[in-house]
Amino acid sequence: MLDVIFYIAITAEAMTAALAAGRRKMDWFGVCLLASVTALGGGTTRDLFLGHYPLYWVANPYILLLVCGAALFTIAIARIVHRLKWTFLVLDGLGLVVFTIIGCNVAMEIGAHPLIVIVSGMVTGIVGGILRDVLCNDVPLVFRSELYATVSIVTAMIYYFGVTANLDPDLVILAALAIGFPLRILALVKKWQMPKFVYDKEL
Amino acid sequence: MLDVIFYIAITAEAMTAALAAGRRKMDWFGVCLLASVTALGGGTTRDLFLGHYPLYWVANPYILLLVCGAALFTIAIARIVHRLKWTFLVLDGLGLVVFTIIGCNVAMEIGAHPLIVIVSGMVTGIVGGILRDVLCNDVPLVFRSELYATVSIVTAMIYYFGVTANLDPDLVILAALAIGFPLRILALVKKWQMPKFVYDKEL
Amino acid sequence: MLDVIFYIAITAEAMTAALAAGRRKMDWFGVCLLASVTALGGGTTRDLFLGHYPLYWVANPYILLLVCGAALFTIAIARIVHRLKWTFLVLDGLGLVVFTIIGCNVAMEIGAHPLIVIVSGMVTGIVGGILRDVLCNDVPLVFRSELYATVSIVTAMIYYFGVTANLDPDLVILAALAIGFPLRILALVKKWQMPKFVYDKEL
Repeated sequence: MLDVIFYIAITAEAMTAALAAGRRKMDWFGVCLLASVTALGGGTTRDLFLGHYPLYWVANPYILLLVCGAALFTIAIARIVHRLKWTFLVLDGLGLVVFTIIGCNVAMEIGAHPLIVIVSGMVTGIVGGILRDVLCNDVPLVFRSELYATVSIVTAMIYYFGVTANLDPDLVILAALAIGFPLRILALVKKWQMPKFVYDKEL
Repeated sequence: MLDVIFYIAITAEAMTAALAAGRRKMDWFGVCLLASVTALGGGTTRDLFLGHYPLYWVANPYILLLVCGAALFTIAIARIVHRLKWTFLVLDGLGLVVFTIIGCNVAMEIGAHPLIVIVSGMVTGIVGGILRDVLCNDVPLVFRSELYATVSIVTAMIYYFGVTANLDPDLVILAALAIGFPLRILALVKKWQMPKFVYDKEL
Repeated sequence: MLDVIFYIAITAEAMTAALAAGRRKMDWFGVCLLASVTALGGGTTRDLFLGHYPLYWVANPYILLLVCGAALFTIAIARIVHRLKWTFLVLDGLGLVVFTIIGCNVAMEIGAHPLIVIVSGMVTGIVGGILRDVLCNDVPLVFRSELYATVSIVTAMIYYFGVTANLDPDLVILAALAIGFPLRILALVKKWQMPKFVYDKEL
């Protein structure tokens, strides 16, 4: 099940990145590249941090074709995409939760410290979006938007504590999805935000 | 032969990066740093992705002196550099093709999947320029300029299929150069571009 | 002693990064993330370049709590922080020197080439600040500010030549601190700068 959602999530990330590329008037190649960085950047950064070789897309390169295919398909259907806004946000939220679970799982398999498990989940969930924003020359959204990273941390903690409590893995995944995903959607609908830190003096 | 062109290409990349640094009024140290990131960033990223240690400039650190020397030399000759515009563009195009071939070669030596060989060539060819543009606070040119990345992909495919067809390696390198390099120059002269994806709605 | 100064330096880096985050109106999570990237980014990049696994914060994850704690504490004391301007600059200067020494030390332990030892020290000292500026969407300060990187190089050279001359390690550390740190403070006070390279033609 996680595998299926993973591919849906990768596809959703690639498609939202393609739209970001379109707003910057990138060419078709740029669209594919930005989609790849966004969809695969989180997992890649996690693998580099953990020394977890080969990188998952090096081991399974067809994922690159999926990402570029999804990006080019987005160009083809761009006219109707704005009607799909909520579809995207839902898939993106699902992706955030699934990426986080997968990231935790990779760290737990190599016996990492609990803190590193949480960080690994979070890096997998949010770094792709940060790289996308840096390449588009924006201050990354995750630094100031709705509870994106918080959802990732909550999901990671549920997954970690569930698995270490020896609960049934499928059940833990379902629980993490059942809490993390609605939390993200609620945050979007209600525009929940973390408190901001505003400091306007020079240091 | 590839070795000689490689050093010429590194030097050319360092010099164009130095000019970019000059447009941002960086200090001499910043010029050297930006030159190093641009000239070595592609190969470094490739090595990190493939887990190919030691990194090539760690194994051969004199390359750092070459890069910084080229950057400082650019400062010294800045007055006449604008007359050399086409020299730079030609060397840069040569560099793109050579970097790509070297990147493919590294991936093939460790027995990577064909898709990864192409990606490895492309990463080696274009990531340095992307990092340069991010550090200069621009949206990377490669996302929307002339067929830069396309040239890299075409070169990589020629090289990969040539080598797997058991053709003479030197011949394959010559063929990749003989097609990739004029393609880049033609794209510059004719201002060939990939189609752009323009999307101006909010998602 | 180096250990103690290291933790002070990490804390200082995290706190100055938190102020940068506040100027960008980031939320509390963004503040912690930017502080982590700034305080740990240099050492992480060095470890990735040298293939030095596990990364130091993966091996010692409580450092993440220290960094996030320091960042949140900065939010709490933001009102009085501007009175501590010089405290910060002093701690930051100390951090630069200590990070550099640690970076050299890591490279020397794995028997790296002298040039790589210097680069390793410099990467550890300055990359965190570069990543902070990229994420805040600025051209990195280190490319054009006071002798930040120069101090790092000078410190690295003193440490390297001291250790290879078989001097007492503690003495070498003291010497590197005693020269690097005042040099940084003097550069701040006197506003010493490297010459700038200004180039305003198109290439």
